[in-house]
Amino acid sequence: MARSTIRRKVLRLDGDRSTGRPDSLAAEEPLEIRIGGTPLTVTMRTPGHDFDLVAGFLVGEGVITRPDQLRSMRYCAGAGPDGANTYNVLDAVLAPGTSAPLTANRSMLTTSGCGICGKDSIEAVRLKSPFPVGEDPVRLTPEVLYGLPDALRAAQRAFDSTGGLHAAGLFTADGRLLCAREDVGRHNAVDKVVGQSLREGLLPLSGRVLMVSGRASFELTQKAAMAGVPVLAAVSAPSSLAVELAEEVGLTLVGFLRGRTANVYTHPHRVAV
Amino acid sequence: MARSTIRRKVLRLDGDRSTGRPDSLAAEEPLEIRIGGTPLTVTMRTPGHDFDLVAGFLVGEGVITRPDQLRSMRYCAGAGPDGANTYNVLDAVLAPGTSAPLTANRSMLTTSGCGICGKDSIEAVRLKSPFPVGEDPVRLTPEVLYGLPDALRAAQRAFDSTGGLHAAGLFTADGRLLCAREDVGRHNAVDKVVGQSLREGLLPLSGRVLMVSGRASFELTQKAAMAGVPVLAAVSAPSSLAVELAEEVGLTLVGFLRGRTANVYTHPHRVAV
Repeated sequence: MARSTIRRKVLRLDGDRSTGRPDSLAAEEPLEIRIGGTPLTVTMRTPGHDFDLVAGFLVGEGVITRPDQLRSMRYCAGAGPDGANTYNVLDAVLAPGTSAPLTANRSMLTTSGCGICGKDSIEAVRLKSPFPVGEDPVRLTPEVLYGLPDALRAAQRAFDSTGGLHAAGLFTADGRLLCAREDVGRHNAVDKVVGQSLREGLLPLSGRVLMVSGRASFELTQKAAMAGVPVLAAVSAPSSLAVELAEEVGLTLVGFLRGRTANVYTHPHRVAV
Repeated sequence: MARSTIRRKVLRLDGDRSTGRPDSLAAEEPLEIRIGGTPLTVTMRTPGHDFDLVAGFLVGEGVITRPDQLRSMRYCAGAGPDGANTYNVLDAVLAPGTSAPLTANRSMLTTSGCGICGKDSIEAVRLKSPFPVGEDPVRLTPEVLYGLPDALRAAQRAFDSTGGLHAAGLFTADGRLLCAREDVGRHNAVDKVVGQSLREGLLPLSGRVLMVSGRASFELTQKAAMAGVPVLAAVSAPSSLAVELAEEVGLTLVGFLRGRTANVYTHPHRVAV
């Protein structure tokens, strides 16, 4: 457990010199997610906060919105060479009346026509959020936005020596960090933050700001919307479909948040200049 | 077609000032991949080089290794609002005797036990490459390595104004760029490079170097191995499982390739210092 980093000897090249030296790697291992004993999907993730990861994944898929819908989670008994639990298979049992997803490849359930584009393309891959964010009255200042990347980095620095981990952080509208998670997969980092909130009974995440260390894709924007987050901020660029989705659901999308600059792509009324 | 960037007005924050201004976004749209008319998967990608993307995806999944195994590829007739082709559904017809993948969620076909870890975890998610790379005699100098990021950036700069695209480039052992592709998804950028090579009849990519703009994950390392590339270089960090796989298949994995420094994680004998 908590194998978030792994030490390994590498050959360091520096100009025309080379030396052997130890290095820390971000751990990446498969996690098989089962629902009531039935395998659903395998995600490549950094071990640690796996219960949060699975809970957040299920929120993002529209399966659960409350902690009581998740009856239990447990690691399957292990089959490692030494007989110890490998902690790479996690079984979630849903409460009666909560439907398991039929497949993790959701897209294939909803695309049946032979043409997906523009508005249609979003319909083909999106889920409807149980938590509308369009009317969320939260406001924040540029100064709060400018402070988020450093606050997230500070939370990361404590346990990230690898340079290989994405981070996601949940903040209040005045910039206080509530939860930070890291993972080799940026979608996993967001799932872990959302899952932690679900398990604490904190959904929807009204009035909160979700900050991610990389780019804002359609998938991350959808995860934010599914958790009821009204503001998503990213260090790097958003994609066109992320902006389209944010526009449509009423989510404020901020990108290129670096130093004391940022771009507000959608619903800028929440940023009080 | 070729909607690789999209213009949009954004609110630019700069200190305590804000101004409306146009911005370029990296285009992200779903591409539904069909095999012989049957939907296989949907990937979120940047439009452009879609035939390369699908060909490379099929190489990465172990479905094809030669161009004649791909009988035809065509966009399905469109269903856009204006009746025009949307170019977001691509149907690939395989040659007789070439088996379509049963599912894009390959992992679920192979994990049946209740424990995946270490060596086992790789077995659970990996494919065996048709092109062993362990014996590839290629050698390259640190100077060639140091030159790759700038060469890839130069190829990118021509058509990347968004800051939101990953890039992959294929190089000779003396640093000559053969093919560069961009995408919002880093796995797509690699698929596009590998697919272009497949379609030109250039697989296996013996003696070549694949360079990626971001991190080296297990998935990217596997795609390199499936295409027979002996050297994978990344600007950022590799994951632990990427290193494990590279070690096992005999692939030279280089990370943190920045300025005149780099880390060689596996099989450093190919880098002549």
